[in-house]
Amino acid sequence: MARGRVTRLTACDVRFPTSLGAHGSDAMHTDPDYSTAYVTLETDAEDGLKGYGITFTLGKGTEVVVCAVNALAPHVLNKDLGDIVGDFRGFYRQLTSDSQLRWKHSSCLEAQTSFSCILLPNQIGPEKGVVHLATAAILNAVWDLWAKQEGKDPRTLSSCIDFRYISDVLTEEEACEILQKNQAGKKEREAQMLTQGYPAYTTSCAWLGYSDDRLKQLCTEALKGGWTRFKVKVGADMQDDVRRCGLIRDMIGPEKTLMMDANQRWDVPEAVEWMARLAEFKPLWIEEPTSPDDILGHAAISRALAPLGIGVATGEQCHNRVIFKQLLQARALQFLQIDSCRLGSVNENLSVLLMAKKFGIPVCPHAGGVGLCELVQHLIIFDFISVSASLENRMCEYVDHLHEHFKYPVLIQKACYLPPKDAGYSTEMKEESVKKYQYPDGDVWRKLLAAQGK
Amino acid sequence: MARGRVTRLTACDVRFPTSLGAHGSDAMHTDPDYSTAYVTLETDAEDGLKGYGITFTLGKGTEVVVCAVNALAPHVLNKDLGDIVGDFRGFYRQLTSDSQLRWKHSSCLEAQTSFSCILLPNQIGPEKGVVHLATAAILNAVWDLWAKQEGKDPRTLSSCIDFRYISDVLTEEEACEILQKNQAGKKEREAQMLTQGYPAYTTSCAWLGYSDDRLKQLCTEALKGGWTRFKVKVGADMQDDVRRCGLIRDMIGPEKTLMMDANQRWDVPEAVEWMARLAEFKPLWIEEPTSPDDILGHAAISRALAPLGIGVATGEQCHNRVIFKQLLQARALQFLQIDSCRLGSVNENLSVLLMAKKFGIPVCPHAGGVGLCELVQHLIIFDFISVSASLENRMCEYVDHLHEHFKYPVLIQKACYLPPKDAGYSTEMKEESVKKYQYPDGDVWRKLLAAQGK
Repeated sequence: MARGRVTRLTACDVRFPTSLGAHGSDAMHTDPDYSTAYVTLETDAEDGLKGYGITFTLGKGTEVVVCAVNALAPHVLNKDLGDIVGDFRGFYRQLTSDSQLRWKHSSCLEAQTSFSCILLPNQIGPEKGVVHLATAAILNAVWDLWAKQEGKDPRTLSSCIDFRYISDVLTEEEACEILQKNQAGKKEREAQMLTQGYPAYTTSCAWLGYSDDRLKQLCTEALKGGWTRFKVKVGADMQDDVRRCGLIRDMIGPEKTLMMDANQRWDVPEAVEWMARLAEFKPLWIEEPTSPDDILGHAAISRALAPLGIGVATGEQCHNRVIFKQLLQARALQFLQIDSCRLGSVNENLSVLLMAKKFGIPVCPHAGGVGLCELVQHLIIFDFISVSASLENRMCEYVDHLHEHFKYPVLIQKACYLPPKDAGYSTEMKEESVKKYQYPDGDVWRKLLAAQGK
Repeated sequence: MARGRVTRLTACDVRFPTSLGAHGSDAMHTDPDYSTAYVTLETDAEDGLKGYGITFTLGKGTEVVVCAVNALAPHVLNKDLGDIVGDFRGFYRQLTSDSQLRWKHSSCLEAQTSFSCILLPNQIGPEKGVVHLATAAILNAVWDLWAKQEGKDPRTLSSCIDFRYISDVLTEEEACEILQKNQAGKKEREAQMLTQGYPAYTTSCAWLGYSDDRLKQLCTEALKGGWTRFKVKVGADMQDDVRRCGLIRDMIGPEKTLMMDANQRWDVPEAVEWMARLAEFKPLWIEEPTSPDDILGHAAISRALAPLGIGVATGEQCHNRVIFKQLLQARALQFLQIDSCRLGSVNENLSVLLMAKKFGIPVCPHAGGVGLCELVQHLIIFDFISVSASLENRMCEYVDHLHEHFKYPVLIQKACYLPPKDAGYSTEMKEESVKKYQYPDGDVWRKLLAAQGK
């Protein structure tokens, strides 16, 4: 059983100066410093375990998320972990529906495996914007701590989901039915994950700010490493896009998979025109063609691009389950991209995985950033084992950055995620990394800011 | 011309302990302390004018918005006001699309009147959540300052609008066309506003936390004061709703207008069932029946309630123009409720007024809170004079709270807003109010927090 009363919650502003190397650059985010509001939960339990949670940010403004975490802290402090996870739906709603702040059952699973997906029960262990990112960081820490403590009890996962505003497409009964149905074949899928891992694609080769030479070099290396699926950033300049996409398609050949990502650069008609031009390079999908809030816009783009064989992918900036619900209802996407740190932690991601299953849409998570790969591997492996039971049209993003700062970094083998084997949500960072990259007082930033005369 | 370089930007956390009297209580916000992140802009211009901007919050978390204002401050400090308003679209996009923070033309108007709507040129005068509220507070201060400085130059209002993500329904050319068309009859409408004012409705009588006796008393007073349109909060308890709605309908009689507001309490099917039960009290609209993000849900509710003669109203928590665009495209509302402090100030509200006009949907602004009436009167009077040119099915919310803290409070006469006559955006608060209600150090809060042993 979950143990301990939460005695301490701290939030750190940790930033990595990735903009110095144009890592992570795209058509809308030209100079990101990959950063995180890093939450640590401590309890008075004798086990001494801590929970670690992150949310992902791009540098500036991380202090605002830290401030929001502190504003939410009274909901968590002095609470019993058992009470929190015992009524996790209620606790989720308490965090997301704080009456002042919002102005911003059944046991289905039972198994035995030898890896540690926090969603699999065999292991120990106002819904948008800044406040929702802070909620994600806190809840991610709760899941990490819970997953480390809890034994192999089968858990009532659906009882963690807040069905408010989605009951018109998914009821708790339907959620349980999906989970129950997938008891069949579960052991085989677990074994498959252990031996082969979950298929991944790489975004590391073709950031918008990379030169053609660097792109070629990285692409060559990736091909040698066994990668078969590649994503390229597009949307800033048509001529550049044509040249870069051509270059990559030539290098990887006609059989391997190419995806394109516009990072919200276009209006609806522009997206359709631009992709008509890039269709010759046979992309599987165009990702974030326009505003992440524009459900009907994505639906229009989907309809226009379907005859060209191009799907629409989106989700990394969809701020809650209500937006995902509508994207599915409107047939606005053909690939759904959850994010482990933008939605309200595991609780809300579960509802999205289940809705995607109901609508028959494959989930291909967003990852990269700081720790997103570490977290999302838990969600997508769970999706395969317990929800979708399929790998068709499915893969998880992978970016080769910043894993060295994590205590339990992801393991990639033959372009696949190998299941994590340590207890918890893989969220814990190395102490020395947190210290060094803390903003603005860590060594790295003191030097950088001094060099900028700040 | 706009004068001065911005030399100082300060943000104050000002909170009014309205929860002590259940003012403002509804089905989702049971204990609001009406609050604001209050921004003051100073320049080095010799005129000594300052710009004041607010955004509206409900107590807790206001410090997070203040933190976000400070994060955005570098975009404003040391900028020339002339440069800011000279490329206001560019400046708007700079604030809302800060590459790190977002992760979170023609002259159409010319006139002469004797009141001061900041949008009318004859007078001296990113995009969601916390960061967007902070953007609103800052831009509201810019508009206030600009409106105070600027003479009667005709302004190119459409050049303030960021058409990104809405060009599929409204182009800049169409926006100008709408404004130009309404040059005809403008003088008459201005005169009409000066003599009769803009029609208002009252929400002051029937907050959810008020007793029946209080409700009756306030309703009696409002009827005496000439009010003919009333809004009642519903959604927490059906029996209460039936009793309270019956009570009000009896008091106001069959001819006067009754609106209902559920403040997002329901899921889609629940909203339809609940309103079928309350239809006997003949409400004009049901406001916020479900999640403000649920465009398709609002469309489904609209379709279901149309045969009962009940419209759907929403918008006060719609976080940007992209959501409004889709509400209009999906025919999801019959009354559109802009909010002066949630959208990105005047710039973004202009785009919503123009889209509503194009779709033929009446705008009935949200007001109340702290200062929302003061700000939104400028927008809705402008809407009548220059955009919609109609009062049909139109009215502006009014709540009789906290006006005494403003230097230029709204003026209500015979249940209508009289046009403001002082230069600026009516955003300036009285110095002594800011001092007294500042959180947590103002007198009022020091006493309250001490009484709570904090």
